[in-house]
Amino acid sequence: MSTLMNHQYRLAARPLGLPKDSDWQYGSEPVRELQDGEILVKVLYLSLDPAMRGWMNDSKSYIRPVDLGAVMRAGGIGRVIASKSPKFAEGDIVSGGVGVQEYWIGAADDKHGSFFKIDARLATLPAWLNALGMPGMTAYFGLLDVGQPKAGETVLVSGAAGAVGQTVGQVAKQLGCRVVGIAGGPDKCKFVVEELGFDACIDYKNGSVKDGLKQHCPQGVDVYFDNVGGDILDVVLTRINMKARIVICGAISQYNNTTPVKGPANYLSLLVNRARMEGIVVFDYAPRYPEAVRQIGQWMAQGAFKSREDVVQGLENFPQALLMLFEGKNFGKLVLQVAPE
Amino acid sequence: MSTLMNHQYRLAARPLGLPKDSDWQYGSEPVRELQDGEILVKVLYLSLDPAMRGWMNDSKSYIRPVDLGAVMRAGGIGRVIASKSPKFAEGDIVSGGVGVQEYWIGAADDKHGSFFKIDARLATLPAWLNALGMPGMTAYFGLLDVGQPKAGETVLVSGAAGAVGQTVGQVAKQLGCRVVGIAGGPDKCKFVVEELGFDACIDYKNGSVKDGLKQHCPQGVDVYFDNVGGDILDVVLTRINMKARIVICGAISQYNNTTPVKGPANYLSLLVNRARMEGIVVFDYAPRYPEAVRQIGQWMAQGAFKSREDVVQGLENFPQALLMLFEGKNFGKLVLQVAPE
Repeated sequence: MSTLMNHQYRLAARPLGLPKDSDWQYGSEPVRELQDGEILVKVLYLSLDPAMRGWMNDSKSYIRPVDLGAVMRAGGIGRVIASKSPKFAEGDIVSGGVGVQEYWIGAADDKHGSFFKIDARLATLPAWLNALGMPGMTAYFGLLDVGQPKAGETVLVSGAAGAVGQTVGQVAKQLGCRVVGIAGGPDKCKFVVEELGFDACIDYKNGSVKDGLKQHCPQGVDVYFDNVGGDILDVVLTRINMKARIVICGAISQYNNTTPVKGPANYLSLLVNRARMEGIVVFDYAPRYPEAVRQIGQWMAQGAFKSREDVVQGLENFPQALLMLFEGKNFGKLVLQVAPE
Repeated sequence: MSTLMNHQYRLAARPLGLPKDSDWQYGSEPVRELQDGEILVKVLYLSLDPAMRGWMNDSKSYIRPVDLGAVMRAGGIGRVIASKSPKFAEGDIVSGGVGVQEYWIGAADDKHGSFFKIDARLATLPAWLNALGMPGMTAYFGLLDVGQPKAGETVLVSGAAGAVGQTVGQVAKQLGCRVVGIAGGPDKCKFVVEELGFDACIDYKNGSVKDGLKQHCPQGVDVYFDNVGGDILDVVLTRINMKARIVICGAISQYNNTTPVKGPANYLSLLVNRARMEGIVVFDYAPRYPEAVRQIGQWMAQGAFKSREDVVQGLENFPQALLMLFEGKNFGKLVLQVAPE
């Protein structure tokens, strides 16, 4: 066991703008011997998320930055291949903070790893990083707790074909809302409407979002779930209804800025409309994850809920795969497969 | 009675930037004869408010724009000098939408006027346009309903010496909060601390607001009541606490922009801190005004609440007086006295 080599991506430098190859250090080290209370996890899939860009900055946020020289933080799914802990047995499939590497080793109750067993019969492993993983939890609690949509209201979501957007829209449909997505390109828009069942999707790469909103949200917007920020947030602010709720989940358009973030110039629409803009961080809802997994899992079992992932192969492709997110090249939740199941 | 001449300011043009003399038309017309159900009000005091600048723009807002050629909208206090309505008697002192003129005539139950009798024994007439008027109502309900401060929390308010700010801070003190103001110049800051009883006041004209926040809000900011927008809002966003509430009441720094409004570049602090930014429009609380008047009036009677007005004399000085607001020249709630009591 001690001769296993663990390939890893470490953060070599803090990026300016889009991460470059030189911001990463790709190397390997032998897997050390297992201690009492520890588990060894062979990583199968990594979750690649826009939020990872933020973790690379040396600035105060909801989670501490990745240290220079440290293995890049990432959630993922793996198989326990050795265990000296009563919590997990060899062969268990677990989800947790594995990092961008082939093997994770440490205490089974490690706070940063915070592993839990997953039920591979309920959904595919990539789906456990999507609708049943962090993006799904983010969507579920952000929409229900912060967005508070009511049946008949119009719910708008940007990044509609992405990991969080998929679940936001599908949950909102379950609640009886009119659901409109914003996505880039005709294929994604088609998928969002035809596969996920949204009422409409606005293609921000073809035509004006403003016109799209007029056409597809004729009653205005009651809940806007924002994953992108920037110009789209600004346009949406001109179309919100009285007492609208804007869920600030992310701002992917701004994460690689080398100039200051563009604040929403139309924020005074919040005043005019007595509306609210509120942030959500999924970790706050950790005690309630099982509730969301149960509900989404049930919809999935009924065939009323889809989870789409874009699986890229090979740990060595991590740097390029991550960039796909910021170019909108992924179609569905982006997952990196590190080893075969 | 029909020979009374009514001097008026009408909106002649929609201003670009600060209102100029040529944006106004000063004229007079005879007061017409009173009809059944109508009252004639002799205007005593006009309330001059930053919001008036917004009403001059031809854009969608929480209230329709003032039409070109129409008498400029303004709230005020006057004496009923003739009545053909059972609702009001000659001699009654009333508050309502009188407009920038010497006399108001119309139906006693006119929706735009929406007059109500005031009790001149409870407070001075200018105070009825301040702590007991729209600014006071805005402050009271904005703070309590949207800001939801709890005892021991830090409440920060900009425009602290202004009409709304005065009441926000004093109400927050009554609730047992740490209260910090932001105001322009040493005199206003001294007034806010020594007269109104705030714990501290940051002089944004002398020194950095950021340093002031570090010094005076060492535990961060739980509630920020924003009257100014712009750079100050942006700095405050870097100092908010988890679950902070930002009440968007106004953005006086932006009302005369000829360039686009500056959006809050640090709005992603809402995400990091799971915080909320929400707008308030006072009219929504009209049914509850009596509750606030009763409470603030009681504090006033106990000597525990002050109301400071800056009274400028003479209708003819309206255009210049209004500009004082945007230059921060008024010290306390700005009121224009149109006729002696």
